[in-house]
Amino acid sequence: MTSYLLERAWVDGAMRDDVLVTVEDGVFTSVTPATSAEVSSGVTGSAMALTPGNPRSTGDSEARIPGLTLPGFKNTHSHAFHRALRGRVQVGEGSFWTWRDQMYDVANRLDPDSYHDLARATYAEMVAAGFTSVSEFHYVHHQPDGTPYDDPNALGHALVAAAADAGIRIRLIDTCYLAGGIGQPLGPLQRRFDDGDADRWAARMAEIEHDQVGGAIHSVRAVPRDQLATVADATHGRELHVHVSEQPAENEACLAAYGITPIGLLAEAGALGPRTTAVHATHLTDRDIELLAETDTEVSFCPTTERDLGDGIGPARALYEAGVRLSLGSDSQAIIDPFDEMRALEGHERLASIRRGRFTAGQLLGFGAGRIAVGEPADLVTVDPASPRTAGTGGDEHTAVYAAHPADVRRVMVGGRVVFDGDHAQVGADLDRAIGGLWR
Amino acid sequence: MTSYLLERAWVDGAMRDDVLVTVEDGVFTSVTPATSAEVSSGVTGSAMALTPGNPRSTGDSEARIPGLTLPGFKNTHSHAFHRALRGRVQVGEGSFWTWRDQMYDVANRLDPDSYHDLARATYAEMVAAGFTSVSEFHYVHHQPDGTPYDDPNALGHALVAAAADAGIRIRLIDTCYLAGGIGQPLGPLQRRFDDGDADRWAARMAEIEHDQVGGAIHSVRAVPRDQLATVADATHGRELHVHVSEQPAENEACLAAYGITPIGLLAEAGALGPRTTAVHATHLTDRDIELLAETDTEVSFCPTTERDLGDGIGPARALYEAGVRLSLGSDSQAIIDPFDEMRALEGHERLASIRRGRFTAGQLLGFGAGRIAVGEPADLVTVDPASPRTAGTGGDEHTAVYAAHPADVRRVMVGGRVVFDGDHAQVGADLDRAIGGLWR
Repeated sequence: MTSYLLERAWVDGAMRDDVLVTVEDGVFTSVTPATSAEVSSGVTGSAMALTPGNPRSTGDSEARIPGLTLPGFKNTHSHAFHRALRGRVQVGEGSFWTWRDQMYDVANRLDPDSYHDLARATYAEMVAAGFTSVSEFHYVHHQPDGTPYDDPNALGHALVAAAADAGIRIRLIDTCYLAGGIGQPLGPLQRRFDDGDADRWAARMAEIEHDQVGGAIHSVRAVPRDQLATVADATHGRELHVHVSEQPAENEACLAAYGITPIGLLAEAGALGPRTTAVHATHLTDRDIELLAETDTEVSFCPTTERDLGDGIGPARALYEAGVRLSLGSDSQAIIDPFDEMRALEGHERLASIRRGRFTAGQLLGFGAGRIAVGEPADLVTVDPASPRTAGTGGDEHTAVYAAHPADVRRVMVGGRVVFDGDHAQVGADLDRAIGGLWR
Repeated sequence: MTSYLLERAWVDGAMRDDVLVTVEDGVFTSVTPATSAEVSSGVTGSAMALTPGNPRSTGDSEARIPGLTLPGFKNTHSHAFHRALRGRVQVGEGSFWTWRDQMYDVANRLDPDSYHDLARATYAEMVAAGFTSVSEFHYVHHQPDGTPYDDPNALGHALVAAAADAGIRIRLIDTCYLAGGIGQPLGPLQRRFDDGDADRWAARMAEIEHDQVGGAIHSVRAVPRDQLATVADATHGRELHVHVSEQPAENEACLAAYGITPIGLLAEAGALGPRTTAVHATHLTDRDIELLAETDTEVSFCPTTERDLGDGIGPARALYEAGVRLSLGSDSQAIIDPFDEMRALEGHERLASIRRGRFTAGQLLGFGAGRIAVGEPADLVTVDPASPRTAGTGGDEHTAVYAAHPADVRRVMVGGRVVFDGDHAQVGADLDRAIGGLWR
């Protein structure tokens, strides 16, 4: 058992001082704020080193953690390899669809070794930014010409190993990707994604050696209507993710081909439900929102990516008011910043509504982060409350949501183990090496 | 004369390697890229220390500056004291108008000493983020009850001194603020702003001891129609700034009272022109856009503030296509980040249009930054091209616009003098001290 005294931490929906936590086997076994629930007027100072000693010490060895400690952030939608595209795909005009062609070009440069290196460096950037878990939406399965590797899950296993190296929890969301559009064959750059049909996809997925594996329907564009239920059935008892209604063109194609919206089509196939995560859900009808609520489907918004890709502003508040659970993903890695995802979700709602305070800071933290509570994983992110960004901002949940940035992260713990100790320069050097190799 | 060899720098609309610059009396006297204009494939490494020696040395002493060097960023709209509000005014629901009441509360806590300390720390955050000049839109003129200080420009002079201490160029935009709304008297929290009438405002402004002073009409809400021309006349030969059409309610009030839009009203009063900067210009008619273009008025967008305040998305591309000059401001200091302002201008256009590439990276740099060119001020910002954010992004203008962050700034020069050498922690500590005092 290890104990930590957190100078200030987000516990039970409030920022509390002097929180004593104990950790055993990677989970919190006790969480005890100071007797007085009152929060002091300010938390200052940027010294982040662990210092021994604790005025409330019980005599056990405890480490005092100064600064603002938050539950680890959950990245519920990631394509690790897109990190290689940052800054490279902003040339000229274009749309989501021209961006996609550039993205495929990079996808076809990857092999198991280079993918491992890229993903390891990308996951290390996530950890250093405060993400302690990631759902990796994985669809680059085979060799560039479509031939399986000797290990048909060589690339999936490379991602799992990369996450272990970086110290982040990974759920591998293995993705079924069969078509180049509704009624269209896969293009030459999409061959690596193809398992032939949903049954063969399911058989390969079942062989992945990892304890956290989910499935995905890439989208209603990439999985034909008659195969959707097969994917949904094969993921019984697992998470099921799906890109949905990210762009108006997808809705138009789906309506034209099937006479129903993508959400409607997924509902019909039994692909919605409490274990399903609908990613983006940007362009929805009122009925789509009802269906997501009725089936208790989670929605993963990726606001910084949706801004970068020109997807539009999704109906986050309408979904929330309908009772839909929301979460956040870094998706294309245009930015890896859990604080910006929270701010952007709220900020885009403000831009669209010309109102402020669409969500409280506590609600936004709830979308983005886990909980510091007994039985939960001991994942903690400690932020400097006196950086150029956070100084003077009060040291409460508004500091976390409206001021903090990955550069302010000083310490990250996953399952009770310190996986980042503040060396941001090393993270940059590893990314430089991993990505440089791909573009030479 | 001092010479610098810039490893890579943004010169004449392209990122060029090995740029030799000479500086005399604070301006560039020569700017010479390497003979080959070809840009190498990558710039790597995070070591930012100045190192002597230069393969193209002419024998003079030259300092080599590694990394990505950009022209200094121009902050064309700032309220320094709003920095004290960051993270403090996000509680509950509300609008621009409820935010404004909270902001007035802070305005009334300031005296010349505390304002100097707050502004110095805020300007230091700007410098460390890459801003080398600021237009300070200044309207807190008098004591809280409206009585002038012994020096009627005590607070303006405190701002000028704060900027000198922080090493940033300041243009003090002294603001005329006479009414609490169209046809409404000033409220009790607005007394400090009031000079009585535009003539007395002009007389006070004329006494400011600084070589860079401009004037401002706070807004058509705060300066009655019959006083607008007086302010415009008094600023003859100076810059004239004005908040305009930030919120729909302003347009509605102006149309109801005068039967004309705020831009139309300003045009009528002779307040538009090549020396005028219209700030925000968010909710415009087609005729408003024509008037701004016909009069060669500049528009200062403040995208991160406009997102935070729920102002809406201004017509940046339509203005640009009409020939209007655009610039960028950090305004409310919700975020101080010239890179984010550029990205947000483009990103909001993408969200509104569901298209990408609305502006090129070069155009965005043109809105935000100065130029590295003979005769221009020797203001340089050097960014680490291998941080967690910038690593692997190619080291060109897309790195600057789509990846860089203030935490990546390693060195800032203003007028040939190094004013920031990479010590971001000191910037945070100073802000912590300056703002902490105000909230106690």
